[in-house]
Amino acid sequence: MRTYGFAATDADAPLPLKPYSFERRAPRENDVVMEILFCGVCHSDLHWAKNDWGWTSYPAVMGHEIVGRVIEVGTGVTRYKVGDHVAVGCMVDSCQHCDQCRKGEEQLCREGNTGTYGGADRVTGEPTKGGYSKHLVVREEFALRVPDGLDVSRVAPLLCAGITTYSPLRTWQVGLGSRVGVIGLGGLGHMAVKLASAMGAHVTVMSRTADKEADAHALGADALLISADESAMASAASSFDLIIDTVPVKHDLNPYLPLLDVDGTLVIVGQIGPMAETNTVPLLLGRRRIAGSPIGGIRQTQEMLDFCAKKNVLPDVEMIRMDQINEAYERMERSDVRYRFVIDMASLKPAEAA
Amino acid sequence: MRTYGFAATDADAPLPLKPYSFERRAPRENDVVMEILFCGVCHSDLHWAKNDWGWTSYPAVMGHEIVGRVIEVGTGVTRYKVGDHVAVGCMVDSCQHCDQCRKGEEQLCREGNTGTYGGADRVTGEPTKGGYSKHLVVREEFALRVPDGLDVSRVAPLLCAGITTYSPLRTWQVGLGSRVGVIGLGGLGHMAVKLASAMGAHVTVMSRTADKEADAHALGADALLISADESAMASAASSFDLIIDTVPVKHDLNPYLPLLDVDGTLVIVGQIGPMAETNTVPLLLGRRRIAGSPIGGIRQTQEMLDFCAKKNVLPDVEMIRMDQINEAYERMERSDVRYRFVIDMASLKPAEAA
Repeated sequence: MRTYGFAATDADAPLPLKPYSFERRAPRENDVVMEILFCGVCHSDLHWAKNDWGWTSYPAVMGHEIVGRVIEVGTGVTRYKVGDHVAVGCMVDSCQHCDQCRKGEEQLCREGNTGTYGGADRVTGEPTKGGYSKHLVVREEFALRVPDGLDVSRVAPLLCAGITTYSPLRTWQVGLGSRVGVIGLGGLGHMAVKLASAMGAHVTVMSRTADKEADAHALGADALLISADESAMASAASSFDLIIDTVPVKHDLNPYLPLLDVDGTLVIVGQIGPMAETNTVPLLLGRRRIAGSPIGGIRQTQEMLDFCAKKNVLPDVEMIRMDQINEAYERMERSDVRYRFVIDMASLKPAEAA
Repeated sequence: MRTYGFAATDADAPLPLKPYSFERRAPRENDVVMEILFCGVCHSDLHWAKNDWGWTSYPAVMGHEIVGRVIEVGTGVTRYKVGDHVAVGCMVDSCQHCDQCRKGEEQLCREGNTGTYGGADRVTGEPTKGGYSKHLVVREEFALRVPDGLDVSRVAPLLCAGITTYSPLRTWQVGLGSRVGVIGLGGLGHMAVKLASAMGAHVTVMSRTADKEADAHALGADALLISADESAMASAASSFDLIIDTVPVKHDLNPYLPLLDVDGTLVIVGQIGPMAETNTVPLLLGRRRIAGSPIGGIRQTQEMLDFCAKKNVLPDVEMIRMDQINEAYERMERSDVRYRFVIDMASLKPAEAA
């Protein structure tokens, strides 16, 4: 089927993104066809557009925080019907038969999951294209149900920023009274605060400066710990069960490790690349851990959406038009967004370009 | 009481160690007095002698792998009687009332445990002195029972090298069929192989070269993985539950992290200091972890000794005389020991020096 969106079409000049029309696969038996209503803007989209990781192929249609409405279903589809609100996150397929897929951890599929964009369709091998577009065709197993009662205009960021922070909170069994720290207060960080808080944790935002205090409390944090305040940092030694580190660039972990209690974990969810040199002493002396965590599986992503509906947890979003995407990228690079841009796809007009 | 041993007495010229006589505290109500029979030689002893960590005070009597015989007991001692074989490891006291001590994790005492050497007696503040000596006075709570049937001449290294590798095997619940890797085949590494193997794990020694193959198998390992063999390393991706890293110097962790399966942990037990720059990608993509682990608590140390007696697990030791300690240090620096030096304290003559 023909659709249209915005893309980086030229490897040599990927930005600004431009209107682009393209073909989606004809729906297979177990596919749903979505009209996309909203799509979140993740920092990964910008990295991908610019080929920062070195394996982007063009034309590239980004977007993996996708919310829409079912407009057509394949003959074998059982879970969804036309009119349902559905969502798609960072992956659209996986092998479905390895041990990880069978456990519902498709994000850890032994064959590699199929990315919502930049992947290869498991049947045809065609490059997958993401949510900066009017329609998406996806197998029903990778579509999530948007629970009734959630404001669909704010759901999109849950599909990446939400699940990426929800998943480690579940892996490390955060609950009532857990002592959780959050480093970085961007798209992921603000969701970590909201989700941990909704789980009953005592949540501390860790920030270099005091100017985040009002924001931290508004998001539901119980405290702000200023990392430049040596005396406050010393007093906070051994007082956290889990620290969620959402900082997306290389940074020094050494000030944070002593804040973990015995057996505590600092989990990196934001930074992809070399970790700054880290001292082993706090690890050894407190049996502390550094971990990484990706998104969650489909089952857990649905659990997260249902949890958010029950607890009324939604991201703070700034709505933009599709043609504002390039300006949004510029502002995102300056961290000038509270806390996530969401594209209102009603603003997307059919592409003039082929 | 007067005793004697070998010490680093001069901060400016700590080596070679020299004969040294000194005063031990008069036994308190809950103390046992040991005649030391054997003392293991740990690489930490050498670091301490040379003040590599910057907080050594002199004179320094090293030794924290101590096995002996009770020759006197305080009036309140209930666990031991004269003639019992007892052992002492890296700590001789702790606060006994914090949450960690109450859990039997005295090594993680909130007030800091009292090191067997280089610590400060919790009653008098006097510097503690270790096992390169004829006698030790220690509160009974920090003396371990040497189980009947264990060859006392080989028990000493269990008190540091043994418990330091046993403890993470228990923390990460190694058992029948667990897939365990061991990096480094020294004092700690060879114990990790023996202990993991005795627990029923499938044990792989990871080595730069193939020349460790016979040694690895002799110690009970099931396989050798040569880290320089890129194809073997690629084939071994995601195939370990736990990797025990005993390498005592800064080294590159990047080749090892992808060997861990999902949720697997690389636990550092040997290296104290800055960890080489490590890529976060394998952590994020496989939810893998890097951890540190110190020694174990008293209860677990006793459990380890009992386990070793039951499974007949003992270190491979090279017996030396006390006056060979300086030569042993030189050989240890060249990794020329299989796998732990143990001092036969019967060789120790009363010090001529004061």
